[in-house]
Amino acid sequence: MGSTLVIGIAGGTGSGKTTITRRLQRQFENRVCTLYHDNYYHAHDALTMEERSRLNYDEPAAFETELLIRHLEALRRGEPVDEPVYDYTVHNRSDKVQRILPAPVVLVEGILILENEALCKSMDIKVFVDADADVRILRRIVRDVRERGRSLESVVNQYLTTVKPMHELYVEPSKRRADIIIPEGGHNEVAMELLIRRIQAHLQEVD
Amino acid sequence: MGSTLVIGIAGGTGSGKTTITRRLQRQFENRVCTLYHDNYYHAHDALTMEERSRLNYDEPAAFETELLIRHLEALRRGEPVDEPVYDYTVHNRSDKVQRILPAPVVLVEGILILENEALCKSMDIKVFVDADADVRILRRIVRDVRERGRSLESVVNQYLTTVKPMHELYVEPSKRRADIIIPEGGHNEVAMELLIRRIQAHLQEVD
Repeated sequence: MGSTLVIGIAGGTGSGKTTITRRLQRQFENRVCTLYHDNYYHAHDALTMEERSRLNYDEPAAFETELLIRHLEALRRGEPVDEPVYDYTVHNRSDKVQRILPAPVVLVEGILILENEALCKSMDIKVFVDADADVRILRRIVRDVRERGRSLESVVNQYLTTVKPMHELYVEPSKRRADIIIPEGGHNEVAMELLIRRIQAHLQEVD
Repeated sequence: MGSTLVIGIAGGTGSGKTTITRRLQRQFENRVCTLYHDNYYHAHDALTMEERSRLNYDEPAAFETELLIRHLEALRRGEPVDEPVYDYTVHNRSDKVQRILPAPVVLVEGILILENEALCKSMDIKVFVDADADVRILRRIVRDVRERGRSLESVVNQYLTTVKPMHELYVEPSKRRADIIIPEGGHNEVAMELLIRRIQAHLQEVD
């Protein structure tokens, strides 16, 4: 698919996909750029804060995925894009953007990126990072309670009312679209090396 | 682990693992050698044909896996090995052997190779080839009825009485030991390329 290699990194909450993404970023620095699906949550300027806080953010309709696809196409053409910046404190897209420069390898990360068929067609390698549901919720609890200062009760409540049902409805079935499934994400050295070697081969071809 | 890269290719009956193995053999020719777990079925010279035909060939105890491990160690040391040759017509090991010459890449193929922990430790990359159970049984039926001349009834009977229960007991749980899981085996071009690039990188290092 030309001189840009687009790698999608999907997987449920707490699966380890961000660890993989960060390791690839550190390994390849400016040869890699990354788009995060989470930054493409729809803007909801017409809604109140209260209304926005009650929206379902774990379903595909929450994302402006068409914009992400257009940005991927632009990066493939060698054009920079302005990725939206999402502001979690107000549940809305901020008025800032982040300029993303084109690179030979583009990573796309997100829980639901394999759910969207058109987005899948924009990817050269579709990775699904997998982990057991109990391990994933433990990681999410530690992250949200310790690092984000949320109450245990609110994490449990959100998990049971939207995260888990949406995972089973959209995320788990989207695994079928993966080209490879990586168990135990960012701590899987063998799988990391497969991805690294594949990227190195691509960089050798374009250099 | 030195200059030999050992790649295990596991997966249930009809998963597509043999297609992957053959494609890697064609791609790399004499840089690759292959050991098949199926050739390491125990010899049962003391049993009658009737007794041998009633043995369970889908459980780990059916294999002389220690011998396979010793052969892998010998290949790692650069020594040739004499792989047993199994004779399915008499349900017993034949008196022939096949000489396997050492190569920079050793493939190990078999349904149950990830079930054995010691064998897993002999591998650098553990691949599990995955496919839905209905797709796998359809492939097995076509193969056994068309290519091996077996009756549909005998294939169905063997599948329900031993292949399926042993798959659920031993094969499916062994997927947890895999470094990567490849859906839709030999027709998954993206995963094939990942394996090919990884092997090419290894060959460049040893050459």
